[in-house]
Amino acid sequence: MVNGRIPRETVRVAEGIGIIGAGVAGLHLGLYLQLHGVPATIYSDKTPGQLAAGRMLNTVAHHNTTVTREQALGVDHWDLREYGYFCHHHYIGGPEPGAAPLRFPGDFEAPSRGIDYRVYLPRLIDDYTGRGGDFRVRGVGPGDLAQLARDHELIVVAAGKSGLASLFPPLAGRTPYEKPPRRLCGGLYRGIAYSEPKRVTMSIAPGHGELLEIPMFSKDGFVTALLFENVPGGDTEVLADAKYDEDPKAFEDLVLAKLRAHHPAVSERVDPASFGLTGPDDLIQGAILPTIRENYIRLADGRYAIALGDAHNVVDPVIGQGANSASYSAWELGAAIIEDPDFDERFCRKAAARRADRVNAIFDWTNLMIGLPPAPHLLELLGAMSASRQIADEFTNNFNYPERQWDILATPERTRSFLGRHGLG
Amino acid sequence: MVNGRIPRETVRVAEGIGIIGAGVAGLHLGLYLQLHGVPATIYSDKTPGQLAAGRMLNTVAHHNTTVTREQALGVDHWDLREYGYFCHHHYIGGPEPGAAPLRFPGDFEAPSRGIDYRVYLPRLIDDYTGRGGDFRVRGVGPGDLAQLARDHELIVVAAGKSGLASLFPPLAGRTPYEKPPRRLCGGLYRGIAYSEPKRVTMSIAPGHGELLEIPMFSKDGFVTALLFENVPGGDTEVLADAKYDEDPKAFEDLVLAKLRAHHPAVSERVDPASFGLTGPDDLIQGAILPTIRENYIRLADGRYAIALGDAHNVVDPVIGQGANSASYSAWELGAAIIEDPDFDERFCRKAAARRADRVNAIFDWTNLMIGLPPAPHLLELLGAMSASRQIADEFTNNFNYPERQWDILATPERTRSFLGRHGLG
Repeated sequence: MVNGRIPRETVRVAEGIGIIGAGVAGLHLGLYLQLHGVPATIYSDKTPGQLAAGRMLNTVAHHNTTVTREQALGVDHWDLREYGYFCHHHYIGGPEPGAAPLRFPGDFEAPSRGIDYRVYLPRLIDDYTGRGGDFRVRGVGPGDLAQLARDHELIVVAAGKSGLASLFPPLAGRTPYEKPPRRLCGGLYRGIAYSEPKRVTMSIAPGHGELLEIPMFSKDGFVTALLFENVPGGDTEVLADAKYDEDPKAFEDLVLAKLRAHHPAVSERVDPASFGLTGPDDLIQGAILPTIRENYIRLADGRYAIALGDAHNVVDPVIGQGANSASYSAWELGAAIIEDPDFDERFCRKAAARRADRVNAIFDWTNLMIGLPPAPHLLELLGAMSASRQIADEFTNNFNYPERQWDILATPERTRSFLGRHGLG
Repeated sequence: MVNGRIPRETVRVAEGIGIIGAGVAGLHLGLYLQLHGVPATIYSDKTPGQLAAGRMLNTVAHHNTTVTREQALGVDHWDLREYGYFCHHHYIGGPEPGAAPLRFPGDFEAPSRGIDYRVYLPRLIDDYTGRGGDFRVRGVGPGDLAQLARDHELIVVAAGKSGLASLFPPLAGRTPYEKPPRRLCGGLYRGIAYSEPKRVTMSIAPGHGELLEIPMFSKDGFVTALLFENVPGGDTEVLADAKYDEDPKAFEDLVLAKLRAHHPAVSERVDPASFGLTGPDDLIQGAILPTIRENYIRLADGRYAIALGDAHNVVDPVIGQGANSASYSAWELGAAIIEDPDFDERFCRKAAARRADRVNAIFDWTNLMIGLPPAPHLLELLGAMSASRQIADEFTNNFNYPERQWDILATPERTRSFLGRHGLG
């Protein structure tokens, strides 16, 4: 500069929003910005084809508030009448063998939908690129952030599994867990008849964990996701370690045995002759330590990076809120970007404030659901749900509005107050 | 209790919301709750008659966003076509005598309105009680709070001038001022012709302070509020100390002399023959130390008290935001109460979060407007307003949306970015 020449590399003008990650958070944000004419670039470490052909990413369903956002984004490709599900079914096993279980339904006001992300994400990437969106296949690590911050006015880190999430310090004292409270085994299965109408079953085996059974659309058509949430040391923990690849038949027999022993509300619809994992890649095993991180960090040159989705917070999948939370946060961040084009600390704080109540409610509600021993007021609410369809429906529909659920469950007093309003004081 | 007898006094059932204070905050909240069927009691240390006959309370105008709330509350009694005003006029004196002043207008999208609170508040109390509202004339001090907390499910302290505000600790480090930055002299005057169309004049005398001239409806009809914002040590400071009661004529002559010396955009419409204060009670002199306090405190028995309006934060009146802020906060608190009937700490935090951005923006914007020396980026914006009607209009209309104003003024970079978007890079 002093001699009047500007190196060619440095005259690149920073433009638009740099979004790292092509999960639901990154794509919903990218599509939102595209819709509003804000330049954005999505960086993905995988091509759409690699995503489609890869290992299963999760066993997530989108609740209707998320579907409504998909409609607004023009990516509602799966008719709810065909692909949706309409209610929950709850099964709570007795704490002792032989004790009478609780079984009760709960209805949504509007349907939810489970689409395998290996179908969902590539389709949304097609939408984004088909509309002219800038999509770049490029792995991004912490070392790339300084350059990206020069290339873009704002960086959004929406890649939970990259090394970038750890740049956002975890909030101390926000999680009640030091170790993952559940060990997970999620897979896609054939040979389980759907309920009529289609529904998700939430089955609780006290002391051992939960099973989520989710009607799911994958590349193989309509299949069933089974997500075993296994308490460490419980009878089903073995599912988190069993190796499908070493002996598929033994793995499937084990799953079936655990289903029969703990989750009769699901096993009663299994056809043993056709039951099985839909493929070796249709399985994920692991564990999640609930973590919530700082909303944003300051980069060089006064630029900021905002954490979105799993990069901001991860929750156990027991109530399937992670993806819905990511979509919601993407929407709120998009709205903040449209309202205020100055991406400084004030902007970051405003963006954080918009999502705070729901994100915190999801975090706390999820952690309560897997607490051991179960909180008495949670058991009280579950008992009331088994006796009152109205309460069960409200709890079920609140999967769309986690902050309302937390209004009911944040304290024993709140649960008592809620039950009192329903005449169960 | 141990002997099985419950003293009669303690079986009173806590009911509804206890609102301490019948200013705009308390009344707008009370009316909002009434509209939504939530029991509330307003405690006022004055009767409507005492309020009507007392000393002037302020020189405030309600911007259109506040008027819109009044319409929703059914208390919009003053037709905007007759009582409203439609724009600002800005006069900025040159820093040295003889330097050319800046004069420029700015339009609202929808009118504002100035009604003397001695007319306004009694009328709203009538509305509230006429609809069956519980209004109690009773001074409430800190010693009464424990009993009130037993009588009500939630206490709202909306009485800035009572000793109750000090129960909410001031937030350290939130104000740039250790002493009041302006000494005030506000009064109602006859003998000043209105502009056509009716407007507020904001006149700046560099180094000495500001004058706000506001068309105001009082018990005497259409009059003019003059609010002198006097810099300590400046030429107009004497107005904050001059005693009207000792020599009315001398006081009025002094006001007229200062008007002529510093605020020609107002003095040019004065008819000296009829000019004068409308009455000995139509004057307030004093000073305000900008203060923002904790949103809520915990009382005995797990009950909470929330600070509202002046009890939560006080700002210098230079941009007339205090009452509008109080009304906005009352509305947001009312909405929070409707949404969530459990008045615990979660509730208090949610209520605080709803109003935070606007309340903080008002606080910071007001403090910036009276900073000395003036911030260069504020001067830059004022200069741009004098050159661009579009910018002046946006600044003016943002009196309705203080958080948008702060988006423009929070940092020099933001002001530059705003001017750049208006082609003034």
